[in-house]
Amino acid sequence: MLREMAEFHEITQTAPITVAEHGGRAKCLQRLVRLDLPVPQTVAISFDTVHQIAAGHRLDTDALLAVFGEAPLVSVRPSSEDPDWGGPGAILNIGMNDDRHAELVKTQGQDVADRLYRRFVQTFAIHVARLDPDMFDGQKPLAEVLDAYEDETDEAFPQDPGYQLHMVLRSMARAWEGTTARLLRQAKGAPADAGLGLIVQRMAFGIGAEESGSGVIQFVDPTTGLPQITGRYMSQSQGRDALAGDGGVLYLTRDPRGPSLEEQCDTAFKELIEAGKVCRTKLREEMQIEFTIEAGHLHILDAVRVQRSSRASVRIAVELAREGVISKEEALLRIEPRALSELMHSQVDPRGKRDRFARGIAASPGAASGKLVFSSAAAQASAARDEACVLVRQETQPEDIRGMHAANAVLTVRGGVTSHAAVIARGLGLPCVVGASDITLRSRDGVLVTADGRTLNEGDLVTIDGGTGEALMGEVEMLPPAVDDCFSALLSWAEELGGMKVRANADTPDDARTARRFGADGIGLCRTEHMFFEGDRLTVMRETIFADEETDRRAALDQLLPMQREDFVRLFQIMEGLPVCIRLFDPPLHEFMPRDRSGIRAMAEALDLPISQVTRRIEALSEFNPMLGMRGVRLGVLFPEIYEMQARAIFEATIEAGERGRLVEPEIMIPLVSAMREVELVKNSVDAIAVAVHNQTGAEFKYKLGVMVETPRAALRAGDIASHAAFLSFGTNDLTQMTYGLSRDDAGRFMGAYVQQGVYPEDPFHTLDLDGVGELLLIGVQRAREAQKDVVISICGEHGGNPESIAFCQDAGVDYVSCSPFRVPIARLAIAHAVLRKAHGAAA
Amino acid sequence: MLREMAEFHEITQTAPITVAEHGGRAKCLQRLVRLDLPVPQTVAISFDTVHQIAAGHRLDTDALLAVFGEAPLVSVRPSSEDPDWGGPGAILNIGMNDDRHAELVKTQGQDVADRLYRRFVQTFAIHVARLDPDMFDGQKPLAEVLDAYEDETDEAFPQDPGYQLHMVLRSMARAWEGTTARLLRQAKGAPADAGLGLIVQRMAFGIGAEESGSGVIQFVDPTTGLPQITGRYMSQSQGRDALAGDGGVLYLTRDPRGPSLEEQCDTAFKELIEAGKVCRTKLREEMQIEFTIEAGHLHILDAVRVQRSSRASVRIAVELAREGVISKEEALLRIEPRALSELMHSQVDPRGKRDRFARGIAASPGAASGKLVFSSAAAQASAARDEACVLVRQETQPEDIRGMHAANAVLTVRGGVTSHAAVIARGLGLPCVVGASDITLRSRDGVLVTADGRTLNEGDLVTIDGGTGEALMGEVEMLPPAVDDCFSALLSWAEELGGMKVRANADTPDDARTARRFGADGIGLCRTEHMFFEGDRLTVMRETIFADEETDRRAALDQLLPMQREDFVRLFQIMEGLPVCIRLFDPPLHEFMPRDRSGIRAMAEALDLPISQVTRRIEALSEFNPMLGMRGVRLGVLFPEIYEMQARAIFEATIEAGERGRLVEPEIMIPLVSAMREVELVKNSVDAIAVAVHNQTGAEFKYKLGVMVETPRAALRAGDIASHAAFLSFGTNDLTQMTYGLSRDDAGRFMGAYVQQGVYPEDPFHTLDLDGVGELLLIGVQRAREAQKDVVISICGEHGGNPESIAFCQDAGVDYVSCSPFRVPIARLAIAHAVLRKAHGAAA
Repeated sequence: MLREMAEFHEITQTAPITVAEHGGRAKCLQRLVRLDLPVPQTVAISFDTVHQIAAGHRLDTDALLAVFGEAPLVSVRPSSEDPDWGGPGAILNIGMNDDRHAELVKTQGQDVADRLYRRFVQTFAIHVARLDPDMFDGQKPLAEVLDAYEDETDEAFPQDPGYQLHMVLRSMARAWEGTTARLLRQAKGAPADAGLGLIVQRMAFGIGAEESGSGVIQFVDPTTGLPQITGRYMSQSQGRDALAGDGGVLYLTRDPRGPSLEEQCDTAFKELIEAGKVCRTKLREEMQIEFTIEAGHLHILDAVRVQRSSRASVRIAVELAREGVISKEEALLRIEPRALSELMHSQVDPRGKRDRFARGIAASPGAASGKLVFSSAAAQASAARDEACVLVRQETQPEDIRGMHAANAVLTVRGGVTSHAAVIARGLGLPCVVGASDITLRSRDGVLVTADGRTLNEGDLVTIDGGTGEALMGEVEMLPPAVDDCFSALLSWAEELGGMKVRANADTPDDARTARRFGADGIGLCRTEHMFFEGDRLTVMRETIFADEETDRRAALDQLLPMQREDFVRLFQIMEGLPVCIRLFDPPLHEFMPRDRSGIRAMAEALDLPISQVTRRIEALSEFNPMLGMRGVRLGVLFPEIYEMQARAIFEATIEAGERGRLVEPEIMIPLVSAMREVELVKNSVDAIAVAVHNQTGAEFKYKLGVMVETPRAALRAGDIASHAAFLSFGTNDLTQMTYGLSRDDAGRFMGAYVQQGVYPEDPFHTLDLDGVGELLLIGVQRAREAQKDVVISICGEHGGNPESIAFCQDAGVDYVSCSPFRVPIARLAIAHAVLRKAHGAAA
Repeated sequence: MLREMAEFHEITQTAPITVAEHGGRAKCLQRLVRLDLPVPQTVAISFDTVHQIAAGHRLDTDALLAVFGEAPLVSVRPSSEDPDWGGPGAILNIGMNDDRHAELVKTQGQDVADRLYRRFVQTFAIHVARLDPDMFDGQKPLAEVLDAYEDETDEAFPQDPGYQLHMVLRSMARAWEGTTARLLRQAKGAPADAGLGLIVQRMAFGIGAEESGSGVIQFVDPTTGLPQITGRYMSQSQGRDALAGDGGVLYLTRDPRGPSLEEQCDTAFKELIEAGKVCRTKLREEMQIEFTIEAGHLHILDAVRVQRSSRASVRIAVELAREGVISKEEALLRIEPRALSELMHSQVDPRGKRDRFARGIAASPGAASGKLVFSSAAAQASAARDEACVLVRQETQPEDIRGMHAANAVLTVRGGVTSHAAVIARGLGLPCVVGASDITLRSRDGVLVTADGRTLNEGDLVTIDGGTGEALMGEVEMLPPAVDDCFSALLSWAEELGGMKVRANADTPDDARTARRFGADGIGLCRTEHMFFEGDRLTVMRETIFADEETDRRAALDQLLPMQREDFVRLFQIMEGLPVCIRLFDPPLHEFMPRDRSGIRAMAEALDLPISQVTRRIEALSEFNPMLGMRGVRLGVLFPEIYEMQARAIFEATIEAGERGRLVEPEIMIPLVSAMREVELVKNSVDAIAVAVHNQTGAEFKYKLGVMVETPRAALRAGDIASHAAFLSFGTNDLTQMTYGLSRDDAGRFMGAYVQQGVYPEDPFHTLDLDGVGELLLIGVQRAREAQKDVVISICGEHGGNPESIAFCQDAGVDYVSCSPFRVPIARLAIAHAVLRKAHGAAA
């Protein structure tokens, strides 16, 4: 293993340089060398050697410098495995000393020589000798700087280049192993033992005769991904001076506003453009190039991947694939599925300024501005005037549905990611921040008071950033959604790979249209309860709940039947024959009750009942743990008339849609099952309604009946249950809650701390907990398939956009995932990743 | 298979009579025959034959009657497999007709002959010919009765004995197969196809010359089980007349109040006493004997097991075993474990009258009377005056603890079996009824209004029956607890059999003493949170919760430390070295907050904070689903200082108890674990405290750290968890809640209907759900033992008294169960049953 013995390597086309041993920058430089780009002579020091240097080993720096010939000046730069992990700053002009200075005075003049020497002494003093930065700041004369160094250290500035380099390497090696640096890079995902390589490179002077200078250039816009030359160049500068300084900055391309590199140094500029093209096609990536021009000659010091927004990522990857530079598969793999979210919503422009007045939980992505309103009525009035508004509430109630439809964004003081506001907003694709507990709402005064004492009034302009969980003052700059041709191309490539299907959770015609826009394969979850919250329906629903006798309940439900039927007809029409899975009524009845005095009074009036009776009834309905209470199939078993009405509405809508040319085979799903008998009872009653509807209308129709697996028990008993069900849909949100004994809404207060302390490796509501919930899922799938091999199995929850979760479900044999319409593209891409990784794994 | 062809058998010592073919009465009669007791000649008709008769088959009744010789009179009685399943009433004097009447007039006189004939005609008319009972009531002259029969049927009363018997048999066979009878017996546990046998017996006349009559006798008191001759005898009567009539009733034994059978008919009486003894020793049971004396001669018609209270059951079984009539094992098996509950508490005397004013959920067994009080303060005042009181509240709060200690019983309007009131009351052994939603409480007026409009005032005497869930007017007759020598003997026999150990859940010294009184093997669950609700501690606890900084929290907790330590010292002393398992703090913090305005005001004063701040903080603490919120180990991880204080208190108490001569190795249990890392974190912190206490005191002590398995995930990950735990305790209550997604408190509203409709075969909170929760338990036990074979495994929940659940846990390899102190004997007996049944199964 002689190779490993070498402590440094000159980077040549054939040197044994690897990312794992020398870091990304070293490897990238070798690639540039192989492309015959004008890279100054460079030496790479391996992770191992740097680690030994930190531990006290002294590298033979004289031998290293000898690679560069007589009296070189060199720079040292870090080269870690991943450029994002950071590292110590570059140090330039190593090798400067009194002799070299004297020579340079002769060749470059006093000023240039002084600047080069001073720069090195300053950097060395601050970053290597760790002297007080204040002593070495600014543009003091060289002699003063050298004196300051001697005063502070009681030694003259070191003159031996080998010693200088040794000190620089040791300082950088130790800085990397310091605690702060380690924690910082671990926060970015680096392993505890991540190594640092170092790059020693011959200096190309950006200072001197003719056109000299340094700069960076890139060939796409980092925000949009569109082709555009951007960057900075500065005459008579070194390193990254161009990014900081003002004087001497040139435009890159010809520009009416002033001189440009293109004009000043046409040859070098053309070479640069050419280098960009070479990088793009050969490194198969949009690169930012760091360069120096020395007396009109181009030197390429480094090239890094262009930092970019998500939308730019998509455009760049798709364009590279279209041009055949990379494969479609690689384009897919280059996009983090979750990044697509940014493209589907307006975004606060990251380049703008933010004046935050509240921070909460990012509950529904996207951003929108509008005037503050504190009630649903005001939101509706605002919408009627065509004025954008932002609805702010303590927490939203079912009555607020219309207000939310009317608003452009929602902000609530209470609630977590599954609160009413959050769920509805995600369904509507409405930017939403919940649990902004740092503000105080005085709705009655029409006033909102911020934590720092500012008062906002109804009508003030604000912006909600649902991606970051922030509420901002005023109307800020936005980036529009980027659901463009590149986005569509990417998704169609994903779809071509096969794998699980993707359906959307969609409750309303709007949802359904969004689902189709984002290419959903159908509706995987249509929650019917939202249909009972709207306007008049809520009153009828309350009558149903208040009815003492079954006959009264049926009478009230009869009023809801035509409305439900119409809901379904509309959904079936929009979905044009794609499958639609309708979940029967699920929530506890008390969700339909008002919570405050005025709501109770209004309800008492509407139902013509004494307030005391209404209050008593509401109290009787209240539950200690609503999540674990009288809801789902439990309601269906005890008050079968509700499910009967819904089944009738579904069947009649199926017939009606059929008459209008849309053949539908609806899927009816039973929620919160924990025992097989529940399924049998509901199945009997639904089947009976089907027979009745057929007998009454003479029409033929088909349907499927299935079960939502949300309790651990349903997963364990999936065998029994599957024998009565055409499909099983694992509701992974509820299943996670029950498996952990953890309410998602209540966990918000401590989940952050829990994940940070590593108690849970991840938030199990974001990433499927493979060890616990995942095992239940596997058990359920296996038992269900054993009992009935054709049973269709899906998962339905917010895990649909998570790549590991998706890969797990795909391996488990799940047929499709269902998620909110805005997550359909994310899930689609995550599935493509899973397919590609699996194929890759199989190939390897 | 000739034997099965016979349609009837005379019951002789050798006849092929079985319970399965002819019923319990037939078999019992054969046993009496074998004991040479004077049983009149009897014929048994099998289930099969009776079933055929119901279907239209005609038995050769003449041949049957021929067994009895010339012109007999006979009776027919039902004989089902289990006497509790009921059956048609006996019919006497079959064979009476005009000829027989004429003969009897000659031998017995007109009156006797008329009575016998009339009785038969009346019974036949009503129960066989199904004529209007009003027409045949009372003591009409015989001729009128015969005329009435002819008027109603247009036929003369049937004269042929064979036809009479045929009609009787057919009528009884059909009555058995009617829907009402079937539903009634199914409600008592009979299978749908339960058969009926019929017994045809020669009549012994209780009417006639010399001393004739009929009666029943038993030799123990059915309420207490103590030896005592009770029963009824009536001269000149037949069948069970003695139980109904007044005239002619004699005392059985010599009595100063009047004539007795013992005096009137000494020989027969002695024979009867002898028969009782024979039955007791040979049938190995206390029997009630039905007898007839015919002209001074004793005839034993039947014998049945004496109906008895639970306390009588225990005494009878134990006494029989002590006398060697039955084995100890059989004595154990004869007692239904749950029946022991009755012996441990005062009971409303079943012989008394009940005036119920409210009905709720039976939350804690036993009964107590006292004056109504509507506040804890009033309860304490009442206790100070030494007056028994019954505390009535809307629902109890932590603040009510002292009031509950002071009260003799508790009644709440809201809440379920795991509500605060119910849990505390069971711990205190206090009779308690919760969720009595049919009453209205107007605490401010000091008035309680019942559903039927009665008004009860503070100070009115009432009785709470926690066994039935009833609240009764006034002070009613009680039976005292029967924790006597028989009770103790039974339990020590149970313990001798081995099997799982039984520990008690005990939070207070009182609980611990009760646990010891009932023979617990230790404390399996000491809930520490109750220790923070008492008086001053609650205020300190609230200070802890309101502290913003960790240092303030620690300061507040420092005040609680000596109190906690003293709690544990007392427990350790009472338990005298038996193991004590202490669960670290579990409930959500909002449980320590007041819920009404006045409580909030008082708290604000106590903490010297503005009410608005208190309200805001309480709101911030409130949770949507407290069961699934920030509690248990989640609190322990986020505020480690709470567990640290508790660990220190435990260790210091261990040292102190050791110094007082009680060597203890405390067990510390972590609640609501869902991930291994939670265990590691708490273990690290508890171990560190142990080291600190050791360093500070120099004392040596040992302890065990374990985990409460309450979430499905903890069961699935039991392997990981067991590698860091000395013991695992499955909290089956919470595990059931989470596996079903069902809050026990909220399920109360529909569990009854659910079980009745067979959706769940049993209430899973009473009987462990073997298919779901049980599977998780098995998975957990198996994985834990694989990871660490010495891990101690227990279950802790209300399933500890259920025989099937116990048997399941024992088979699963559980080491001990822990239950409330008052359930310890029940669990002990259930375990004995499981051991015996298993041995029996293995032997068979």
